[in-house]
Amino acid sequence: MASKSSDKVLFFSQTSIPDKFEESCLKLDDFVKHQVVLNRKIILITSGGTTVPLESRTVRFIDNFSSGTRGSTSAEYFLQKNYAVIFLHRHKSLEPFYRHLNRDIFDSLELTSTGDIVVKHENKDHLAKIIKQYKTIEEEKLLLKLEFTSLGDYLHLLKATCERLNKLGTSVMLYLAAAVSDFYIPKADMSEHKIQSSNGPLELKLQLVPKMLEPLVKDWLPSAYIISFKLETDSRLLISKSKQALDKYKHQLVIANELEKRKREVTLVTSETVNPIILSEEDLKRGTEIESVIVKEVIKLHDNYIKSN
Amino acid sequence: MASKSSDKVLFFSQTSIPDKFEESCLKLDDFVKHQVVLNRKIILITSGGTTVPLESRTVRFIDNFSSGTRGSTSAEYFLQKNYAVIFLHRHKSLEPFYRHLNRDIFDSLELTSTGDIVVKHENKDHLAKIIKQYKTIEEEKLLLKLEFTSLGDYLHLLKATCERLNKLGTSVMLYLAAAVSDFYIPKADMSEHKIQSSNGPLELKLQLVPKMLEPLVKDWLPSAYIISFKLETDSRLLISKSKQALDKYKHQLVIANELEKRKREVTLVTSETVNPIILSEEDLKRGTEIESVIVKEVIKLHDNYIKSN
Repeated sequence: MASKSSDKVLFFSQTSIPDKFEESCLKLDDFVKHQVVLNRKIILITSGGTTVPLESRTVRFIDNFSSGTRGSTSAEYFLQKNYAVIFLHRHKSLEPFYRHLNRDIFDSLELTSTGDIVVKHENKDHLAKIIKQYKTIEEEKLLLKLEFTSLGDYLHLLKATCERLNKLGTSVMLYLAAAVSDFYIPKADMSEHKIQSSNGPLELKLQLVPKMLEPLVKDWLPSAYIISFKLETDSRLLISKSKQALDKYKHQLVIANELEKRKREVTLVTSETVNPIILSEEDLKRGTEIESVIVKEVIKLHDNYIKSN
Repeated sequence: MASKSSDKVLFFSQTSIPDKFEESCLKLDDFVKHQVVLNRKIILITSGGTTVPLESRTVRFIDNFSSGTRGSTSAEYFLQKNYAVIFLHRHKSLEPFYRHLNRDIFDSLELTSTGDIVVKHENKDHLAKIIKQYKTIEEEKLLLKLEFTSLGDYLHLLKATCERLNKLGTSVMLYLAAAVSDFYIPKADMSEHKIQSSNGPLELKLQLVPKMLEPLVKDWLPSAYIISFKLETDSRLLISKSKQALDKYKHQLVIANELEKRKREVTLVTSETVNPIILSEEDLKRGTEIESVIVKEVIKLHDNYIKSN
């Protein structure tokens, strides 16, 4: 089912402009200008799942599984390599650096006799390193975070970002790790108020979301290095569906992962190559994050792409 | 549409037993025994939204709006009043004490010259108070936390908890703040793998979840003080629907709230009274949490209930 460009125009008219959209656009303008002056490569990372509201004043929604681990972890490794990162993420999903702030740390807060609060954590040295990195990134203005909740927010912000990156050619990379809904309910078909259970069983009719990767590769950012993700639960579909996506959208790379193995195994699929990345038991014990390996490989591919274009 | 007891039996057989269910039951046994020895009142607080999976190996699900603010905040105030709290909450929703651990705190972590990590927060004194409270609660074993994700997990754990509280009579309170799905897809109707968008638009048929408040009040915990919550977006329905619920289920209290005003206005509805709680602008500026007022009022109602039964 090929989606037509009219579908996309229709889709944008059927979803609301996100809150504080103009403010986000101004932030984008400033951020991109700053990076261009410093001649930095820029990566847009999308992260977390989009929601599809079932009601206008939303109590219920359809969500896609994603806590934002892939995106937030990858962002840290790209930042270490001096990429400027636009991190477009689901509100309250994991964020670079903040992701390390967990219950363990709260449990390890101690009050001293002088009234100070200190962190008595067994991984204190690791945490100290992260705090240092975080403060450097802030000072150097290497990271811009933008938030979405619904599918509509996400697509409006994605488009606005691409418009601002369009002139920067091959130095731009897109790392589309967000789990984007395939189905939605158009505004006109939506209940305004909370759907009442006293009306009995519920039938929902969801429309297909037009595949935005198509205009993105063709029109919005034709020179960028574009990476999409493919998550399946059925491993037999994984590589063939990744190849199909590359055939159809003509972008550069698909990172394929199976739901249950995603933290220790992914496959980088290009139109010519199929390159699995698998962490060993030892890697896992040492606490190696698979994103550190993915990012290293992706940067090599991006460098080659810049050289050959 | 009155739900029959056969619906409920059917529902339980159509949802899977939660992970680590036996472990949770053992924890419940220990916790309840400990509180009974110390003659403490026990409150079960449910918090956060339940999910309804659309696939067995779940990538997509329907979710109910709830970050767990009402439940986690209320839990802290009940703990301050020496209630033992069973906190049955959605995985990754807000938890008592941990809810104060936010980005602000990460931003305020500083490295000292001696290699320590200290918190340089403007609200340091407030945070110090919370850390002290938290450590006391831990030492006194006043708090048990249990997690759910899906509707099925939630209902199995709710039932198991009620079975263990049943013999404790009027000293038990239920504070059902979780946002529980009204609709679900039975296991037999569910797709095993991720639903493919290549099959075109999606039609979903959802069944009504049987109203568990009915057996809960009648059979599971007939002597307890039971509080349900009513959230609506349409304010005109709020009080009438709360009254209907009390008529139908014969429990003691409905806490009614409108989605957009829920942090500054709620109404306590009993079969005889309608008691609004509204925070003033001054209260809000001072940082008063509405849960502090709700908990005070609810404890009064519970005390009266114990005396008169």
